[in-house]
Amino acid sequence: MMMMMMKISALQIYMKDMKDMKVTRRRCWPCRDSHIKLNQLIWGENCMIEFMREAINLAVNKMRQGQGGPFGAVIVQRGEIIARGCNRVTSTNDPTAHAEIVAIREACARLGDFRLTGCDIYINCEPCPMCLAAIYWADIARIYYAADRRDAADSGFADAEIYMEIGRKPAERRIPAVQMLRAEALAVFREWQMKVDRVDY
Amino acid sequence: MMMMMMKISALQIYMKDMKDMKVTRRRCWPCRDSHIKLNQLIWGENCMIEFMREAINLAVNKMRQGQGGPFGAVIVQRGEIIARGCNRVTSTNDPTAHAEIVAIREACARLGDFRLTGCDIYINCEPCPMCLAAIYWADIARIYYAADRRDAADSGFADAEIYMEIGRKPAERRIPAVQMLRAEALAVFREWQMKVDRVDY
Repeated sequence: MMMMMMKISALQIYMKDMKDMKVTRRRCWPCRDSHIKLNQLIWGENCMIEFMREAINLAVNKMRQGQGGPFGAVIVQRGEIIARGCNRVTSTNDPTAHAEIVAIREACARLGDFRLTGCDIYINCEPCPMCLAAIYWADIARIYYAADRRDAADSGFADAEIYMEIGRKPAERRIPAVQMLRAEALAVFREWQMKVDRVDY
Repeated sequence: MMMMMMKISALQIYMKDMKDMKVTRRRCWPCRDSHIKLNQLIWGENCMIEFMREAINLAVNKMRQGQGGPFGAVIVQRGEIIARGCNRVTSTNDPTAHAEIVAIREACARLGDFRLTGCDIYINCEPCPMCLAAIYWADIARIYYAADRRDAADSGFADAEIYMEIGRKPAERRIPAVQMLRAEALAVFREWQMKVDRVDY
């Protein structure tokens, strides 16, 4: 049932793309190849599966090499993988070095842009809130994931707990947040709004 | 009223620290100096104000230099600033280069650890979900912030919108998320759980 729902969702999104992007029905959007003699939708799905398998392979291979946790991500632009990332938290002493963050930074460096508009991300696990928000900041178009936050929790990762924490009011969270000096900070925001050469993001 | 509430909260947390950490009442926890002749709690509060002003100064100075948006953060360990960060999204083409992420990465590099247990973070604005989750992953003890997500929204930043998006079910979000190949990904998690030399984080 879940597989069925996944397939319908992926296909529905794919078909919407086909319409939105005015591509011909003979061109496979994920891989950009022409698959003239075959059903385009099935081919699109197959390309998605290849990208996801690449993310899963990254997760397992880099985990075996001792880079960090079992997580991998690839970023795809018009059917081409433009960046790969794996979890490197423990090997680089960087708690922000999740696979998605590593891949986003690499893709942005490659494109010379702080936005990945139109790109998709394939991840072997549902992104944690840090990575999900990073995906929003990067303006990524779509997320494909394999395992989910409950599976990650079963393997000892805090993703699901952090999702719950973020939904709570600041005063009710495990890490307390205290507001102070708001008036002084607002003056900086006013200066930002008046800045004529500011670059919005 | 808000100032009053802030002061009570900050003081309550500070007083709890004094008790938890078994420091003498003559030592100011935020700055670690002894202020024997003065009311310790007031001094503690003053040190917090200094750290926050440093974060606000970073925000305004780096914004003026064109580094990025008007955001600054400092990380404090036992009364000493061990890392500073400013927003560098647009100058480095890195959508993850928020002040908090930059400061966390710098603090971790300095300490040679992927955890900042016991450290506090002072930020000129409430962290966005990416930075809040990064604070959880880094095991930071407390968050002090000045402006909040609504103030950021008034200046054109997407923080509040992303908080709302993260609270929604994946299928109802602006960026669609599709699950696929879960079974293949679970095999990687099982291998992680069996890995004898794994480093948990």
